[in-house]
Amino acid sequence: MKKNTSAHVIIIGDEILYGHTLDTNSHFLAREFAKISIDLIQISAIQDDKEDIKDEILSSHADIIITTGGLGPTRDDKTKYVLSEILEQPLEMHEEALRWTKEYFERVVDRPMNVLNRNQALVPLGTIPLHNKVGTAPGLWTEMGNKILVNLPGVPFEMKYLMKNEVLPRLLKRFHPIFIHHEFVQTIDIPESELAELLNDFEHDLPNHINLAYLPRGKKIRLRLTGKGDDLHALKFELNQQTDKLIATIPDEHFLSRDDREIEKNVGRILMEKNQTVATAESFTAGAIAAALTSVSGSSGYFKGGIVAYSVELKEKLLQVDKSFAQKNGVVNKEVAMQMARGVMELTKCDVGLSSTGVAGPTADEFEIQPGVAFIAIVSHEKEAVFEFHYPHLDRKDFTKKMTEMALQKLYQFLR
Amino acid sequence: MKKNTSAHVIIIGDEILYGHTLDTNSHFLAREFAKISIDLIQISAIQDDKEDIKDEILSSHADIIITTGGLGPTRDDKTKYVLSEILEQPLEMHEEALRWTKEYFERVVDRPMNVLNRNQALVPLGTIPLHNKVGTAPGLWTEMGNKILVNLPGVPFEMKYLMKNEVLPRLLKRFHPIFIHHEFVQTIDIPESELAELLNDFEHDLPNHINLAYLPRGKKIRLRLTGKGDDLHALKFELNQQTDKLIATIPDEHFLSRDDREIEKNVGRILMEKNQTVATAESFTAGAIAAALTSVSGSSGYFKGGIVAYSVELKEKLLQVDKSFAQKNGVVNKEVAMQMARGVMELTKCDVGLSSTGVAGPTADEFEIQPGVAFIAIVSHEKEAVFEFHYPHLDRKDFTKKMTEMALQKLYQFLR
Repeated sequence: MKKNTSAHVIIIGDEILYGHTLDTNSHFLAREFAKISIDLIQISAIQDDKEDIKDEILSSHADIIITTGGLGPTRDDKTKYVLSEILEQPLEMHEEALRWTKEYFERVVDRPMNVLNRNQALVPLGTIPLHNKVGTAPGLWTEMGNKILVNLPGVPFEMKYLMKNEVLPRLLKRFHPIFIHHEFVQTIDIPESELAELLNDFEHDLPNHINLAYLPRGKKIRLRLTGKGDDLHALKFELNQQTDKLIATIPDEHFLSRDDREIEKNVGRILMEKNQTVATAESFTAGAIAAALTSVSGSSGYFKGGIVAYSVELKEKLLQVDKSFAQKNGVVNKEVAMQMARGVMELTKCDVGLSSTGVAGPTADEFEIQPGVAFIAIVSHEKEAVFEFHYPHLDRKDFTKKMTEMALQKLYQFLR
Repeated sequence: MKKNTSAHVIIIGDEILYGHTLDTNSHFLAREFAKISIDLIQISAIQDDKEDIKDEILSSHADIIITTGGLGPTRDDKTKYVLSEILEQPLEMHEEALRWTKEYFERVVDRPMNVLNRNQALVPLGTIPLHNKVGTAPGLWTEMGNKILVNLPGVPFEMKYLMKNEVLPRLLKRFHPIFIHHEFVQTIDIPESELAELLNDFEHDLPNHINLAYLPRGKKIRLRLTGKGDDLHALKFELNQQTDKLIATIPDEHFLSRDDREIEKNVGRILMEKNQTVATAESFTAGAIAAALTSVSGSSGYFKGGIVAYSVELKEKLLQVDKSFAQKNGVVNKEVAMQMARGVMELTKCDVGLSSTGVAGPTADEFEIQPGVAFIAIVSHEKEAVFEFHYPHLDRKDFTKKMTEMALQKLYQFLR
C-alpha cells in the first residue's frame, strides 16, 4: 500500500448548510477511512451549485474524492451533470443501471417508474455505475488519472449500503490497506511521569505493530493503544486483550474508565461474562440510558427493562421511593437515587439496578436544586454506590447526553 | 443589511477527520446563521495543520469566517499562531484576557494556573479577545479588511456560549439582519396541482413577508412556510399561527404531519392545550421515545413516565400483556402493541398510552419476525390506533431512530 493514500469527503446539499439536517454521513465515512488507514484530509459541505461542486472536486489534493448527495431524480440534483462536464463526456443511458432501477421499482416501489427515474440510469461515458439495491440512484465510480472519484447518494442508508458493498471492496482491492484500530483507557490523579514508569514493562512487551500514546487532559490522562495489521478481526481481538492487560497494570484508584465511543459494548461484554442482568430507573434522563444500553445487538441477554419515572407519583408507586422523604427533601438527592436503584432491582429481579435523578433545566426545581445537578446510583446485592454531578453550563440536551455517558462509565467501573 | 452576507465555518481538528468525534458544532452554527439570514456557503473540516488552516482561511470567499478548535493550551493547538502569521502581528499578553483566565481558575478549576494556561491570554495585536466565562480559552474577533474572522474553542458548550453571548450580538449590531424562520407541513396522496388549488386563498392572504413553497417527494408534498422579519419572536409567533391555519385548510385524509426538527415540541403543545398526559411502553426503542418527549423543557407537565419492557416477563408483569398469547404469537404484533399501550395507560393513569414493539436486528426473533418490522400503538379512553412499519434496510440504530420519529409523528396525528 502507498503509505499516505488520502481522501476528501464532499457533502453536497443546501439542507446541511441551512442547518435543517445534521450531517452524519461524513462521520461514518471518516470512521470507515480510519479503519483502513486512509488519511481523510478534508471534509467539505458545499452548496448544491454546479460551479461550487466542480471547483471543490477539481481543487482537491486527495487521492480519493467521495461526494454524497445530489444524485436524486430532480433538477436540483446536479452531481452527474458536473461529472459529465469534468470528464467532457456526454451522459448516456446505461442499460444495466436502467435494469437495476426497473427491478428496484418492481420490488419495492408501488408506482410505475417515470421519466425522471429513468434518467437516474444516465451515466457519463467512462464512469462505472454502482448497484444500489436499497434505492433508485446508482453510485458512480470514476477513475480520473491517478485519482478516484466516487459519487454516492445523500440518504444515509443508501450511502452506507453502497460504501460497504461496492466502494470499500474496490478500495481494498486497489490499495491493500493496513487496518488501524484504537482502544482508549482513561486514568485519573496520577502524573504522566509516574504512570509511564508503571507502564514501562507493559510498553516494552508490546509487539511492534501496537503502540501506546499518552494524551493528558488536566488531571486525566487518556491512553491510546493503536494497532496496525492486515486482518481487522484479529487486530481487534489482540488490542482488546492488550487493553485488558493495560487496565490490570493500572492501580484501581487511578483507573477511570475504558473509554471509547462504545462504552455500552464494554458494559455488555462484562455483564455477559458475569452472567448478570441490569435494569434502569430513570428520572430526568427519561429512557436515554436504557436506549444507550440496548443500542448494542444482543443486549436482550442482559438488559431486562426499566422504568422512566418522570413524575414523583411513579417514583413512589413503581420504585418504592419514600413519599414523606420526597415531600420534605425533593427527589434530586442521593437518598432518592439510591431508593430508585434498589426499587428497580427489586421490581425486575435483576442483579444490578441503576438510577438517575437530576434537574435538566432550564429552571431549578421547587427545592431550589439548580439545573445541571444530578445523581446516579448503582446497586447490586453485594454493594451500592452513588455519584453526584454538577454541570451548570450545559443545556438540557447536552446535560442529558453527558449524564447518559457518565452513567454508563460508572456502571462499567462498578461492574469491574 | 447587505443582502448576501455570507459565512464559512472551518472546523479544525484531527478528531473529526479520524472519525473519533461527530462534529455537531457546524450544525449549531448553520442553524444560528440561518436564523439571521446569513448565507452559510461552506463548512470545512480540516486537519490541525498550520498550512492547511492558513490556506483555508485565506482562500475563503465568505464575509464572515468562523473557526472552531485549536485554541487549547497545548502545542497541538495552532489557530492563534496561524492568526499571528496571517496578520503579521506578534502575540502579546492581553491583560484583560489574562484576568479572565485567572478569575476562571479561581472560580472553577481546583488547581493553580500554569504557564500553558497563562499563554491562553496571548493574543495577536489587533485581535479582540472574547470573554469565555465557561472555559479557559477566550474567543478571538479579528477584522481583516471587509472580512470578519472569529476563532472559537472546539468544546461545544464553550463554542455555544461564546457564539450566543459574544459573537451573535456583535454580528447583529454589524449587519442588522433580517431574521428568517421556517415551518413545515407534510401532505400525502394529493397531487401538487390539486393542493395548490385548495391553498389558493390561503396563499393569496399571506402577508408579503411570508411565502409558501411546495417540495414534492413521491406521494408526499412538503410545504414550507418561510417568513422574514426583524423581530424573531414575533415572526415565530406569526408563522406558528399561519401554520395552524394552513393545516386547517388541508383535508384530514391528506394531512400527514406538522413536520420539522422538533415534532416533540408540537406534541407537547397539543398535550398542554388539551390538558392531557401521556405515558410510554417501549420494547425495542427502549426509552428513546420517552427521551425524545422529555427533551422539551416543561415536558414534566404532560409526560408522567414510562416502562421500558425489553423482556417478555416485564411486558407481562407491568403491562398486563397476555402471557399465553405472547407464547403462541411472540410479542411483535398488533395485539401485543395494543396491550402494552393499554397497560401503560392503566398503570400510570394517563390519558394517552403509546407503545412500541419490533425487531431491531441484526437477526430475526424466534417467531421469524424480520429485522426492521415494528408496531406502534396509541390508545386513549376515546380511541385506539395501531401502525405497522417495515424498514428492512435500516441498521439497528437507524431503525430505532426512525421509529422514534414515526412514533412522535403518529402521536401528533392521533392527538389532533
